Amino acid sequence: MTAGTEGQRGVRLTGATLAAEIRARVSESAAALADAGRPPRLAVVVATADESTAWYVRSIAKAAAKVGITCDIVDLDPSSSGAEIDAALRRLSADPSVHGVILQTPLPPGVDFATAATAIDPAKDVDGANPGSLGRLAAGLPAFPPATAQAVVALLEHYDIPLAGRDAVVVGRSTVVGKPLAHLLLDRNATVTVCHSHTADLAGKTSRADVLVAAVGRPALIGQEHVRPDAIVVDVGTNATPDGGLVGDVDPAVQGHVAGLTPVPGGIGPVTTALLLEHTVRAAEGTSR
Amino acid sequence: MTAGTEGQRGVRLTGATLAAEIRARVSESAAALADAGRPPRLAVVVATADESTAWYVRSIAKAAAKVGITCDIVDLDPSSSGAEIDAALRRLSADPSVHGVILQTPLPPGVDFATAATAIDPAKDVDGANPGSLGRLAAGLPAFPPATAQAVVALLEHYDIPLAGRDAVVVGRSTVVGKPLAHLLLDRNATVTVCHSHTADLAGKTSRADVLVAAVGRPALIGQEHVRPDAIVVDVGTNATPDGGLVGDVDPAVQGHVAGLTPVPGGIGPVTTALLLEHTVRAAEGTSR
Repeated sequence: MTAGTEGQRGVRLTGATLAAEIRARVSESAAALADAGRPPRLAVVVATADESTAWYVRSIAKAAAKVGITCDIVDLDPSSSGAEIDAALRRLSADPSVHGVILQTPLPPGVDFATAATAIDPAKDVDGANPGSLGRLAAGLPAFPPATAQAVVALLEHYDIPLAGRDAVVVGRSTVVGKPLAHLLLDRNATVTVCHSHTADLAGKTSRADVLVAAVGRPALIGQEHVRPDAIVVDVGTNATPDGGLVGDVDPAVQGHVAGLTPVPGGIGPVTTALLLEHTVRAAEGTSR
Repeated sequence: MTAGTEGQRGVRLTGATLAAEIRARVSESAAALADAGRPPRLAVVVATADESTAWYVRSIAKAAAKVGITCDIVDLDPSSSGAEIDAALRRLSADPSVHGVILQTPLPPGVDFATAATAIDPAKDVDGANPGSLGRLAAGLPAFPPATAQAVVALLEHYDIPLAGRDAVVVGRSTVVGKPLAHLLLDRNATVTVCHSHTADLAGKTSRADVLVAAVGRPALIGQEHVRPDAIVVDVGTNATPDGGLVGDVDPAVQGHVAGLTPVPGGIGPVTTALLLEHTVRAAEGTSR
């Protein structure tokens, strides 16, 4: 299904349809794997007492169950050391019944995510957390990209939004979203600009974007002054509100001022979860990307 | 030494002084390593009959000898298979008397550089060729950056050219220069745009750059129409001319139209070689970056 954004205004680029398509593929693959005596299994390592994280991880486990993937939530003490997290990731990486390993953030104080993630076997690194996966991605070798970064390009492609020769601006330079996304967009022949907290004249840069991606984690970071009328805007932000809701990095009022905007919730989020599950069956099949 | 480019025009940003400073440090480190019974040793794997490559590799060996580093040129057959190159890199990676391993391009037809380079031990990957090194670099973990990419930021820093909050445009998205350089510039808080062969309106992008880096490998790719008067332009191109000379990617006439330009030869090249040697002594010392 495509939105046909040509000349249209304010299209809501929702993720539900694409996510359902991916989940249908995953269900088939999971059933075939189970028939072959290799039921797919995902392990999520959690080392935080944070409530919203627990909620998010349970939602992954539920989504996994629906497509025939077993999801183990491996709860570690919120005061775990780097060595303890490392040991858990190595144990799961060595366990032949586990096909995908995710290290959930936030981590205990003093534990560096990238360092910890080097303990994840690249073949099971279904959320592209190991820096080695990022390097392989950048070098054009097979690797699982971080699911969120991949969800951005998957949703753009779902809506037939061209990337080759277009100007893409990514706001945010995290190792888990901004940086891998820059490589995925370059792979698709977009010209890519990465902006961040030190960027001078942010609105000047973002308003030149054909495709603008906000991935910082700050509500209303992107307003009407940051966009041009024919832009496609992808909102990767997931910011909790005091009343238990979720808002993105883009002011929702922007929707009426651009060609298309992904909503939060309901945009990138469901695609991300579906891709995590797809990576898990691909890992169980022994393929990547 | 700084050029003090503030308000100046057409400064030649030469690499000789910085390269000499680096070599002086390396000489000291190499002497200390030799005294400690650990004489630093670099191995360069060559699998091409290309004459200009042979000349370049000999120039590295000579530069190494001058600072007290032994450089072994490991000549493989120009028709070597990927497996043969892999075996050579693994053998050198396992040899405790070898501290740095470089895989020289071009490679035999059908051999992929990034795939081959995965066989280089990251601790000896002094030219940052293993995709794992690129990933670690992007994730902020210790790793040797590709020497050419690092030479760009080292030379800019040598001339006190500010990067934080400035707009850097990199033309070229190779795994060995453009992509790692983008990460090094982001690390220094520049806003980074990566352009390439599919970029629309290249001159429009490059003429907005405070710092413009050309790393494509095409003579005169960057002309006067691509720059603004206060730009600093770094020329990473090394293109052989029919008469045996060397020209960059930037039309030399650009120099009079910008604040500063690195010459070819004599700009990035000597700094690159010096950094390769510095990485080798750091690897011998057991440190990186």
